[in-house]
Amino acid sequence: MKIPVEISARHIHLSEKDFKKLFGNDKTLIPVRKLSQPGEFASKEKVVIINSDKRIENVSVIGPFRNASQAEISLTDAYNLKLKPIPNIKVSGDVSGAEKILIKGQNSSIKIPCIIAKRHLHCSENEAKQLKLGNNQKISVKIKGIREITFHEIIVRISKDYRLALHLDTDEGNSAGIFVKTSGEIIK
Amino acid sequence: MKIPVEISARHIHLSEKDFKKLFGNDKTLIPVRKLSQPGEFASKEKVVIINSDKRIENVSVIGPFRNASQAEISLTDAYNLKLKPIPNIKVSGDVSGAEKILIKGQNSSIKIPCIIAKRHLHCSENEAKQLKLGNNQKISVKIKGIREITFHEIIVRISKDYRLALHLDTDEGNSAGIFVKTSGEIIK
Repeated sequence: MKIPVEISARHIHLSEKDFKKLFGNDKTLIPVRKLSQPGEFASKEKVVIINSDKRIENVSVIGPFRNASQAEISLTDAYNLKLKPIPNIKVSGDVSGAEKILIKGQNSSIKIPCIIAKRHLHCSENEAKQLKLGNNQKISVKIKGIREITFHEIIVRISKDYRLALHLDTDEGNSAGIFVKTSGEIIK
Repeated sequence: MKIPVEISARHIHLSEKDFKKLFGNDKTLIPVRKLSQPGEFASKEKVVIINSDKRIENVSVIGPFRNASQAEISLTDAYNLKLKPIPNIKVSGDVSGAEKILIKGQNSSIKIPCIIAKRHLHCSENEAKQLKLGNNQKISVKIKGIREITFHEIIVRISKDYRLALHLDTDEGNSAGIFVKTSGEIIK
């Protein structure tokens, strides 16, 4: 079975409370683009990520609201922001021990935990059965091309709300020379 | 045998003629840091890479002079510079068909071919014998860690002037989560 590959650019997730702080009590998330995982969307609202005099503008807020806020950036971003220490490489949603970073919205600024997302495979329960994969299992996926690559240590995340997709960040996408919609194969 | 891994940041190589144009007839390359490949060095002189209103400052010039000038940037750089088309992924030194980019020195600006460097293994003749590798052969190298990865399509380049090292660019280094001096193993 071919594994669709998707590249996640830097983005943030917000709790409703943090969103209201950043954008105002009268605002809510406005979806402008559906993402591949059912229910997820890129929102109209953008934020700035700030570290001292370094900043990254125009960062997407991904909806819907989550219980806890977090920023997900690439290693390249971390170097450009001159972050020290470099954020931990962790599975999205796990912000234990993560350093916080300053996020600026239209209304105000807050600090939220910041991680570099660990590569992972989204998978529905049916797809997991077909692929004989278990939740939190680690797999390897090979992507062909001029920059052919095998990503190991990919965490499998199974949910009825998920749809099959390998999620990489922009550094990983670039290292594999991915320019267009592509797919990979699981290597046993 | 362990394969030392080295990350090449964006840089340019210059012919002596192009260097004089950029920095003046009275100037020459001043080495400030030896690189791993014998004879190669980072020089004191820095250039700016320019595309329309986008620019990357403080780009290293690698000596000694070469017969032909070229810029080597990452895919991340290409996106940040909003280059269209994206430069070809090619072995350093092969600039056939490469688009040119504007380079600014202290004295003036010139256009030189720009590529994204294809990953490659530098190897002395003795090391090649030990590893049973031939020139231009393609190999795969696995690098362990939290972002464990296998790079395929690595071109072997053998010369008595080379010393064993896998050369990756910054996107590739970040995708492998390389923070410190590391090494990989050849996967047959």
